[in-house]
Amino acid sequence: MAITSFNPPVRTLMGPGPSDVHPRVTSAMARPCIGHLDPMFVGMMDEIKDMLQYAFATKNQLTIPVSAPGSAGMESCFVNLLEPGDKAIVCQNGVFGGRMKENVERCGATAIMVEDDWGKPVDPQKVEDAFKSVPDAKVLAFVHAETSTGARSDAKTLCEIAQKYGALTIVDAVTSLGGIELQVDDWGIDAIYSGTQKCLSCTPGISPVSFSERAVKVIKERHSKVQSWFLDTNLVMGYWGGSTKRAYHHTAPVNALYALHESLVLLQQEGIKHAWKRHQDNHLILRAGLEAMGMSFIVDAAYRLPQLNAVTIPAGVDEAQVRSRLLNEFNLEIGAGLGTLAGKVWRIGLMGHSSRKENIVLCLSALEAVLGDMGADINTGVALAAAQQQSAS
Amino acid sequence: MAITSFNPPVRTLMGPGPSDVHPRVTSAMARPCIGHLDPMFVGMMDEIKDMLQYAFATKNQLTIPVSAPGSAGMESCFVNLLEPGDKAIVCQNGVFGGRMKENVERCGATAIMVEDDWGKPVDPQKVEDAFKSVPDAKVLAFVHAETSTGARSDAKTLCEIAQKYGALTIVDAVTSLGGIELQVDDWGIDAIYSGTQKCLSCTPGISPVSFSERAVKVIKERHSKVQSWFLDTNLVMGYWGGSTKRAYHHTAPVNALYALHESLVLLQQEGIKHAWKRHQDNHLILRAGLEAMGMSFIVDAAYRLPQLNAVTIPAGVDEAQVRSRLLNEFNLEIGAGLGTLAGKVWRIGLMGHSSRKENIVLCLSALEAVLGDMGADINTGVALAAAQQQSAS
Repeated sequence: MAITSFNPPVRTLMGPGPSDVHPRVTSAMARPCIGHLDPMFVGMMDEIKDMLQYAFATKNQLTIPVSAPGSAGMESCFVNLLEPGDKAIVCQNGVFGGRMKENVERCGATAIMVEDDWGKPVDPQKVEDAFKSVPDAKVLAFVHAETSTGARSDAKTLCEIAQKYGALTIVDAVTSLGGIELQVDDWGIDAIYSGTQKCLSCTPGISPVSFSERAVKVIKERHSKVQSWFLDTNLVMGYWGGSTKRAYHHTAPVNALYALHESLVLLQQEGIKHAWKRHQDNHLILRAGLEAMGMSFIVDAAYRLPQLNAVTIPAGVDEAQVRSRLLNEFNLEIGAGLGTLAGKVWRIGLMGHSSRKENIVLCLSALEAVLGDMGADINTGVALAAAQQQSAS
Repeated sequence: MAITSFNPPVRTLMGPGPSDVHPRVTSAMARPCIGHLDPMFVGMMDEIKDMLQYAFATKNQLTIPVSAPGSAGMESCFVNLLEPGDKAIVCQNGVFGGRMKENVERCGATAIMVEDDWGKPVDPQKVEDAFKSVPDAKVLAFVHAETSTGARSDAKTLCEIAQKYGALTIVDAVTSLGGIELQVDDWGIDAIYSGTQKCLSCTPGISPVSFSERAVKVIKERHSKVQSWFLDTNLVMGYWGGSTKRAYHHTAPVNALYALHESLVLLQQEGIKHAWKRHQDNHLILRAGLEAMGMSFIVDAAYRLPQLNAVTIPAGVDEAQVRSRLLNEFNLEIGAGLGTLAGKVWRIGLMGHSSRKENIVLCLSALEAVLGDMGADINTGVALAAAQQQSAS
């Protein structure tokens, strides 16, 4: 049977990402493709670099979008900074710390793990202790905003510890960029990667990264070649570099970069501090409604991410069936738990263009309808009023 | 100064890629984003796999799009099949053989180079000789259609030689897929990668790959882990695999895959044999016009690619200025020479949706106008008639 054009349903995306894409972003993506060495395209690349510097709060020259998803951005940071025999302290308090460990080991380096419970932030004292045991660690790697749990770690403090021991920092900002405060230069972050599909309101597929001058120096002085040709920053710099003469490295994903460009224009127009505040305000509204319903958060308020709400599942309901009904009856996607939290929590995203009051109202109403129908032990008829009261405050 | 939305010019893309994107493809790309684990998305993934099998002429189960450009597809083939200490025979007759060598060496393997002049196909006798010298080579790697020169190598014969010596084959089909005959199963290719931005009429950024059962067995029996986490086929198979339960690996570039899906629907509707014939027919029309103008091809007709026309530059003109005027006055992009051919040739692409008679007529007319104006030594007033005569034949 012949396969025909794919027409996706129109969903509201309140999972851990991708989040709702702003219509201006999808429109930009559909503009005519031009050559990846076209002078007009090169000009647009420079604008993307400028706007990424704004988003990351950095003056780092090497601030570019990797032409692949966040996991490739992560790999880009590790393969460029680590060489065989190096040591890296890796903090794990969720799924993505484990992925960092995999990256370290595949570089022929050794990972010294600092473990914290899922749902807790990275404990700075444990990191300090790890550096005392391994003072020659080259890198400290941690996740700023753990998408698998909804916990924020104190990036500023962790970077200060690394600097005290002369180590470079690699920071996962996939879920934090655009959603909560992030200060690459002020905090002294050396290598950072993010994704387009979370708080930037953009389609998935591209990973913004930034490397400090100190990191670039380390990369330029490597003894061995970077094991990945595609991600070798020495080569990528020739294409994304400052000169007007760009060296061909790979064919850039032209239309995906149109989308990123437009999402960054949106961020500039809103103002990043306003974006952070919007994420926080909307989180409080959702929280008021969920708590009124009787649901609770697994992460303490002190380090809870506003953009990724991990909440417990009411007793007596089949959580997968709830998600399936939300999707089929309301075209609403929320996220399942990952790893040790699978089956135990839902992850409700309020990221980027998804962080809107109309989405919150839909989510609370749909959850109440489905959970009520399934006989779950929740308070009914109170969530929307609680949300509205928080919104007015 | 605030950066505003980017509105690209409308170009005609007749360089080495990206080529013109079919409007149905850009429209598909702008459809609403849905979750990468949404059942509707998983269904679309299966359709993409089916249609890629059709395009590659293979039944290989592991036939998927890598979520990154062609260079990542290349790297995916090498890092999955090679381990430190392995030997690979690499054929170089243009830019991309050199990139293959880089990939082999970054895997800790040894590259045995088979060199041919740029513009010539790979010489099977030299490959046979290389296997006689290095009978334990694990891999033979070559480029089917060299984008840097416009030469086609005899993939079928080269694969037969590799099979005689028990070696796996890695084939670069970035520019060949959809443009000229390619038979993955019949020719016994073990690993192949392509790009979306050439003869598939799609936007750049995704790399279709396919691995034979023999290659999958080699990957599963590796002694060492694949050095790239992002490209580790053992992990990617869990996401793109046959089961209905997909394991999260990375967030797929959802909208870019809508585009690929639509481009593959277009290919099925046209029929792949018809697409090959269209590329050949249009090449002959362009050729008639260019030759009437007095320009000549650097590749012999016997192994000339119809989709990538490398032609000499008329004496006495500044080739970069010609390209610049074509771009600025006619919104027409043609390609410069790469590597040893830089400054010596133009590369005129007739790939995918660019391979249309209206594009040929524009290209011949614009070239004649600009070259004539610059006083180049060409025959004027004859190109269009010659093209028309060929078209009618």
